[in-house]
Amino acid sequence: MKVEVCFSPALINLYELKRKTVVVVDILRATSCMVAGLGSGIKRIVPVAEKEAVIPYKNQGFLTAGERNGDKIEGFDMGNSPFEFISDKCKGRSVVMTTTNGTQAIHHSKNADKILIGSFLNLSSIAQKLLSEQQDVVIHCAGWKNRYSLEDSLFAGALLDVLGNKVEIACDAALSSKTIYQAVKNHLIDFVMNSSHAKRLEKLQNHENDIIYCLSQDKFDIIPVLKGEFLEI
Amino acid sequence: MKVEVCFSPALINLYELKRKTVVVVDILRATSCMVAGLGSGIKRIVPVAEKEAVIPYKNQGFLTAGERNGDKIEGFDMGNSPFEFISDKCKGRSVVMTTTNGTQAIHHSKNADKILIGSFLNLSSIAQKLLSEQQDVVIHCAGWKNRYSLEDSLFAGALLDVLGNKVEIACDAALSSKTIYQAVKNHLIDFVMNSSHAKRLEKLQNHENDIIYCLSQDKFDIIPVLKGEFLEI
Repeated sequence: MKVEVCFSPALINLYELKRKTVVVVDILRATSCMVAGLGSGIKRIVPVAEKEAVIPYKNQGFLTAGERNGDKIEGFDMGNSPFEFISDKCKGRSVVMTTTNGTQAIHHSKNADKILIGSFLNLSSIAQKLLSEQQDVVIHCAGWKNRYSLEDSLFAGALLDVLGNKVEIACDAALSSKTIYQAVKNHLIDFVMNSSHAKRLEKLQNHENDIIYCLSQDKFDIIPVLKGEFLEI
Repeated sequence: MKVEVCFSPALINLYELKRKTVVVVDILRATSCMVAGLGSGIKRIVPVAEKEAVIPYKNQGFLTAGERNGDKIEGFDMGNSPFEFISDKCKGRSVVMTTTNGTQAIHHSKNADKILIGSFLNLSSIAQKLLSEQQDVVIHCAGWKNRYSLEDSLFAGALLDVLGNKVEIACDAALSSKTIYQAVKNHLIDFVMNSSHAKRLEKLQNHENDIIYCLSQDKFDIIPVLKGEFLEI
């Protein structure tokens, strides 16, 4: 069972996705929100690439969620903080969501056999699922506007660390991710706080709480899967 | 003075290169060959992207060098091993060179104010030059067919390690590169031997000697610069 890592949606066309499972990851904060929300009672989430695409769903009663450049989109019900996704008002609801990087990465993974949503919040569940299915894997890091993001690579490394020698590290990006995660895992939060993406979020409220939450491991034992247009567990 | 790192020629369009110095790096093996060759008496090197483009230079008496997919191109004088570039037959000669990744990365850096050729072989010279000029820097990793290559990122990390706190780490790819280099620098050769790019080279003769040579630091005190179409020191 081979595992590759792709550092940017702009590079995913270089990877063969057919007959593979793709794990999409956007730690700060789209996939963390998806896992937290679906693990806390949200019924389903539709990821859409363009913000205009939320309108037909909104008209059907979906809650709207999204950000551009880290800021909540005006008129939307929610932004991109996991704390909004675990609030009581979301329970049982359907959500339509668009973000700068995460939902784009999902859309660029469409050639895969299966698309799973990964985050530190459901790390062990994802690892267990991958091992049980024994299909080759591409971990697709959403990055930041097509550039490399540290926290997504660290998730890839954490997943490879958990998978251990049961899988084959099949590209340099995977080896790099595992090595860097193992080098910093004992001071992960401080390290991510020092990264440029985290610094970009500093202007936003509650960034520190968001980051600490998004780096927490195994708060949820769920695996969001893309079924048609819906993410469900 | 800010330093950014770009992991792939396919991502370089996301970086502003105007008024910046770009250090192009393709450790295995284009930029290592360029540094070794220019440091051993080659007069000048013309990097060309397409193998057909060597013909007019060949007709003017240039030696031809190049590889595709790691293999020497049929009919060329040299492949892509640094040992070919330091041989006596090259002294005083002009060379036209085309490789899978390295020369492409040079061509994609053309918007920069200045293009330098980096490798472990001239690491300290490059660092000194950058510090003396105090211009913002993008380290452009050639990668492998637009995918991330470990050894190029390790060079970026080594350069950032030497530059130390005299520069600002200006993106996550730079922070990642520095962190991974510092984590593995005491067993760099073993670590690179285990990477997928090195494994790809295994089928080729002398790969181990090439890799050890290409990871040797500061064999040459030179800085190849692109002047028009020529790399010179």
